[in-house]
Order: sequence, then structure tokens, then C-alpha cells
Amino acid sequence: MTAPAAAAETPAELIARLAAAGRTAQRLLAGLDSASKAAALRAAAAALRGAEPAVLAANARDMTAGAAAGLSGAMLDRLKLDPPRVEAIAEALDQIAALPDPVGQIIDSSTAPSGLALSRVRVPIGVIGIVYESRPNVTADAAALCLASGNAVLLRGGSEAVHSNRAIHAALSAGLVSAGIPAEVVQLVPTQDRAVVGAMLAAAGQIDLIVPRGGKSLVARVQADARVPVLAHLDGICHTFIHAAADPAKAAAIALNAKLRRTGVCGSMETLLLDAQFPASPAVLAGLLEAGCELRGDARARALDPRIIPASANDWDTEYLDAVLSVAVVDGLDDALAHIARHSSAHTDVIVSEDAATYERFLAEVDSAIVMANASSQFADGGEFGLGAEIGIATGRLHARGPVALEGLTTYKWLVRGSGQIRP
Amino acid sequence: MTAPAAAAETPAELIARLAAAGRTAQRLLAGLDSASKAAALRAAAAALRGAEPAVLAANARDMTAGAAAGLSGAMLDRLKLDPPRVEAIAEALDQIAALPDPVGQIIDSSTAPSGLALSRVRVPIGVIGIVYESRPNVTADAAALCLASGNAVLLRGGSEAVHSNRAIHAALSAGLVSAGIPAEVVQLVPTQDRAVVGAMLAAAGQIDLIVPRGGKSLVARVQADARVPVLAHLDGICHTFIHAAADPAKAAAIALNAKLRRTGVCGSMETLLLDAQFPASPAVLAGLLEAGCELRGDARARALDPRIIPASANDWDTEYLDAVLSVAVVDGLDDALAHIARHSSAHTDVIVSEDAATYERFLAEVDSAIVMANASSQFADGGEFGLGAEIGIATGRLHARGPVALEGLTTYKWLVRGSGQIRP
Repeated sequence: MTAPAAAAETPAELIARLAAAGRTAQRLLAGLDSASKAAALRAAAAALRGAEPAVLAANARDMTAGAAAGLSGAMLDRLKLDPPRVEAIAEALDQIAALPDPVGQIIDSSTAPSGLALSRVRVPIGVIGIVYESRPNVTADAAALCLASGNAVLLRGGSEAVHSNRAIHAALSAGLVSAGIPAEVVQLVPTQDRAVVGAMLAAAGQIDLIVPRGGKSLVARVQADARVPVLAHLDGICHTFIHAAADPAKAAAIALNAKLRRTGVCGSMETLLLDAQFPASPAVLAGLLEAGCELRGDARARALDPRIIPASANDWDTEYLDAVLSVAVVDGLDDALAHIARHSSAHTDVIVSEDAATYERFLAEVDSAIVMANASSQFADGGEFGLGAEIGIATGRLHARGPVALEGLTTYKWLVRGSGQIRP
Repeated sequence: MTAPAAAAETPAELIARLAAAGRTAQRLLAGLDSASKAAALRAAAAALRGAEPAVLAANARDMTAGAAAGLSGAMLDRLKLDPPRVEAIAEALDQIAALPDPVGQIIDSSTAPSGLALSRVRVPIGVIGIVYESRPNVTADAAALCLASGNAVLLRGGSEAVHSNRAIHAALSAGLVSAGIPAEVVQLVPTQDRAVVGAMLAAAGQIDLIVPRGGKSLVARVQADARVPVLAHLDGICHTFIHAAADPAKAAAIALNAKLRRTGVCGSMETLLLDAQFPASPAVLAGLLEAGCELRGDARARALDPRIIPASANDWDTEYLDAVLSVAVVDGLDDALAHIARHSSAHTDVIVSEDAATYERFLAEVDSAIVMANASSQFADGGEFGLGAEIGIATGRLHARGPVALEGLTTYKWLVRGSGQIRP
């Protein structure tokens, strides 16, 4: 055995070096006003538009390699860039530049009996790590959200998108530097060594927050291994409960939309709970079946329509992300609440009812990040919630829940202004 | 080797069982109104007052065992209960009962273009674990803060206080049950097996938050080992920077108070930074020395007073919690900011200056949980900040920073009220 060359940097050393550089750059960023950050983001957008030929050429290399490696059509589609997609990425940067700046916002203020003037103001979190898979747009989106909230970011994208990510990052970096922002605010981890992800997850005190963006196996690995706090959701097992007093037309439309508008999003319905007293269940089920959805039901659901196949015990805990839905008949609100408490992934759960007392109880008692009455769960989205963007949807219990955008990427500090007070 | 008896419950199984019971009880608690929770806390206070003889008898057993085990005088003092201390614990319960209830508070609300009415409302975190050392009052204080914020709590106190903690817990429990609150809202871990602490720290998904209360070695162990989020501070290395434009009298008074009012609290000053241009440094130093404080300085500080002994490199990173202070002379604000960025534990840092532009820059640029101008760092306290109490002071970057009381023991959920919206 020979010792490694002195020049070899371990993954932990690499991450420590990048995080330290990010921390230094972040201190400068934290002091910039909103207009300067917005100008930098617009400069990055302009640089990306100018780099379109280079980005498309890099993406073509990834697409060729991906096809040769046998990536699925869906994966190749996520990877693919074309002029409209590059323009959409640049446009997203411009939109993030236009969002209100959370940094410096005063959360609350008061004067203590001692005369001290107290206030809590929002400040950036610090250094954020993004671990993501094949979508190259995450490189720009995540970088822009972190920068707009005053944070430095370490980006670690998937190997299949390595050339695309490098080209996008190079363009962003040139744009930011042209606007006077240190390049170390947005750093792309320069190696695809898988041990680097482990080093990021272990970098407590160096990286302040990890946001995984990708499939369930990526999120599960990050949640299992991270010593750094993680903002994420693992599953989106979203329920829709149709109460006895639901409007039949709204119920049918919401069920159809919640399941089938897009089946691959985390806010899509995975379980439909039908109140035994709701008279129009057969019509709701027929609508779903006739739209091509496979239904897996308990015995009482199957009694409503012979096309429903039997559900297994696992179905109630399965996120299909496909045109498949589990269906159970429940005895009123309490039974629905018990089912949801047991099986929900705490992402988004919905009641459909015209009875305000019933849906207000549902809103109060369901303990998920998002609880809705009389709307499709597919509205679970930062854009639809008026946040202008989102870094992800969080189902943990601390810091930020539901769609997370700029505010969720900040923390706060207490400012205390005195006039010489000493404590008795 | 023989298999363990079937009846033996592992520490992990014990914690899983207690946490599950806490979760069930917490769901009931979450639905209670503020008046019911307050009444339960007052009932617990009354029960504790009624149980004073039993609590004092239990405490006497702990004191006898502690003395026999050779506990220090300071440790025995922390352990000791007497009638005034029991009354103070009961009074604290009554005070917590009178605090505003954060649960159900609406953080913000809006109407989306889709017509959906969005709001974020505060909800309890869930099940909170408290790991603490010898002070038996923590049993009541922590339980009351968790209950008042709608959370269930698992309490794991120190072995030296085991009888005191059991007696206090029994009284609280009787009071809560008499007010209709399930006993499982406040559970005392029924064994002093040290492996149980490890099981609590590993109980991700079962316990939502761990709050360590005790010395640095306890906090360090919890932070190193926990897979559950932790709210804590490890060190309170608090700086006071006396700027050139400080008022000499205020500077001297603040320095004396920040260091010596109580030396054992986390908000006590540990490092004094003197601007080279501040003319009254010798008087500030003389005041500290003549009050009995040991000063350890760099060469420039020692040139100001021969009684200052040399500081070692470690001193700048040491929390003395004693009448010892490290002193450095710095060249203006930038030099002070650099020292603080390098050595602060992000707890509380202070500037003394009459120049508003200077202290506002300090407030903006120091990235600690609490940043003060012209006040003693010993004001770093939930009571002084108007929170009415505190579960602890947090120096992490996520969720809650600085003094944490009821609001910091809550999270939020999004409520969405629609009228049948489906997403286009």
C-alpha cells in the first residue's frame, strides 16, 4: 500500500474548503441591499441567455451519454434542454430577482421594561447545500433562491447532467461576478465522486442546511445520513376526504384534478376517502375510472364499483405518482381523521364539504404541512401560494413547513438597542 | 449465552412506547383551548403546593445520597429544595399559565389569484424530549412550557435528582389529571439507565425535538449524537466591544455588569474588546480588576494595566463562567467584527458606542442570535425579553434563535380554504 499523494484532497477537505469560501463570500452578500442582489440575478439571467449555445452544446454531450447509458425516456426528458427551456430558466432568474427580499424584514419589535428596544430581524441562514439529480434547471433555480435570500450555496448535481450543470454554473458565475458578487456565493462541487455527497451531509457547522431535490431514494439517503439539518419531504401521500355534505360536482372535479392533472407531482392525491353517507360516490369513482385511473379499494369501496380492484395493506402507505389511486369508505369525519393520522405523510390533505363546522374541524385537527378545504391538492405549490417560487416542500416539523421559498431560507436574530442599561 | 427474558423492554422500545403514548395524548392536548390548558397548569401548581411535604422528603433522600456520593457544594445547592423553592416552582407554573397561547395564532394570511384563502397558523411541534441534570425545577418548568405550547414531553432528569423529580412529576401529573388532561402529556422516563438517553437522541420520527438543559458536556453529547433536532447552545462566549465613541461611564458600568453580575450564566461576557482609540480603557480595566476579576490580555491590553496577565491562544475561545475575562485591544469596528466572527459562539455580542452609524453597522453585521448596543449582555434572557419564561437559549441557525419560550415550541401549518377550485 502506498500513501495517497500529498496533493490529494479528501471529500471532507474539499467540502470544508468550499464551505469556508462560501461562508466568507456569504458575509459580503449578507451586507448587500436588495437592489444589488436583484441586479446580480438579472445579470446572471442575461449571462445565461448569452451562453445558450454553450449550454445547449454541453447538454447535447449529456444527452448523448445518457442515451448511451440507457437512461429512460422520462429521465432523458428531465435532462434535455432546448432554447425555450434555457429561456425559461433565465426567466425564472428574472422572476426571483423581482421577489420581495426577506433579509432585514422586522418580524416583531417591542420595548422591554428595562427600556431596551428589542426586535427580531430576518437574516440569511448561511451556507446551504443542494443535492439534486438530473434536472439541470435546479442549478439555476436553487442558486437564485439562495442568493436572493442572502445565502451562499454549494450545488452538487447528478452525474448525468454534469456538463449541462457546469455550463449553466459558468454562465451564472460570470453574470454574478460582472455584477460585483463574489463567485464563491454559488459554487458547483467540482467532482462527481459520490463520497462528496456523504461529506456534505456530514458537514455540520460548515453547511447550515441541506436541501435534496430529486427522487425518493435520494431524499431517503439524505434524511438517513445527514448530520446537517435537512429541509425536504420524503413522500407526498396526499388524502382527499369527501364528506357526506360535499357538493357532488365539486367533489368529482376535485378528485379528478387532484389525481390526474399531473400524476407525478408530490401534491397529487394518492388516497381517496369516501364518507359512507356521501350519496354521489359512484359518480366520483366512475369519473376517475373513465379517465383511465386504476382504483384499488377496500371491500366497501369495491362494493360501489366492480371495476375497483382489491387494495393491499401497503396501498394505504404508497405514493403511486401514477394514474393509480387507493380508495376507502370511512364512517364520517372521525374515521377519516384516524385514517389520515395513521397514513398521511403530512404533506397535503384535503376535505371536500359544504359544512363549515366539519371542514373547520378537519383544518384544525389534521396535522399536515398543508390542510385544504374544497380545493385540489395539486395547488400545493409555492407559486400557487404566492411565494413566487419554491426551493421545495417540507414535511418536517421544524423551521419551515409546506412550500418553502425565500423566507424559509432565512432565520432571524434579536437586535437589542439600549442606552447604557445594566441588569439589576 | 442466553436470550434476554421476553419481558425485558429495550431502551429503544421503552422510548418508542412512551413517545407513542405522548403522541396520542398530544393530539388531545392540541385540540384544547387556551383556558383549559391554563386551568390545567394552575391545577398542577396547586397539586405541587399540596405535595410540598412529599417533595421535600424525596429531595432529602437525594440530598443525603448526593452528599454521600461527594457532590460539590454547588451541585448540592442546585439539587436542594426548601419551602421557598417549591413555592417558586409552583409560582412559575402559574406564571406560565398566564402567558398568551401561541397555538392557533395566525402568522399571516392572503388570498391567492385562484381565490384560495391561505393562512399560516401556529401549531404545537408534537413530542419534545428534555434531557437535564440536577435541577429538579426543570421537571416542572419544562413540562409547563411544553404543555402551554400544546406539546407532549418526555422528561429525563439526572440520577442525582431522581426522587425529587419523581415526587414533582407525581404532583404535576395528579394536578393535570384532575383538570382532565391525560397523564401521558407529561411523562418522566421511569429508569435512570443511561442507554435511555441514547434511545431518546436516536428517536427520529418519534420525538420531534430534544432540548438539553445542563452543562456543556451534556449539551455536547446531545449535539454530537442526536438524530432528532436539538434546540440548545453549547457555549456562551459573549463579547463586548467598547468603541472609540463609547460613553466612558456607560462602558465601565456595562463591562462590570456584563462580567460580574453573575459569572455563571451563559450571557455573561467572556471577552472584552477595547478600541485602541477609546480613551478610557484604563478606567474600565481598573474597575474590573478592583471588583476582583482576573484579566487575561493580549500585549496591547497588558500595556494598559500591569495587573493583566498574558492570555493564551485558547483564552479567546474559552467560556470561563467565572470571574475571569479575556481582553484584547482592536483597531476599530472592522477589527472587532473580525475577532467576533472568528471567536463568538453566536450567543450574545455587544457594542458600546454613542455613534449610531457604528452601532447600527455592528447590529447588522454581527451574526449572533442576540446582538446588543449599549446594554449588558446579561440581559440575554427570555424573561428580560418579555417572553415570560424560557426553555433555553438557542445558538443554532434554524427554527428559533436566542431565548426560546412558547412560540419557539410551536411550528406552523398552512390552511387553505377554497370553494371548489381545481388547478388548471
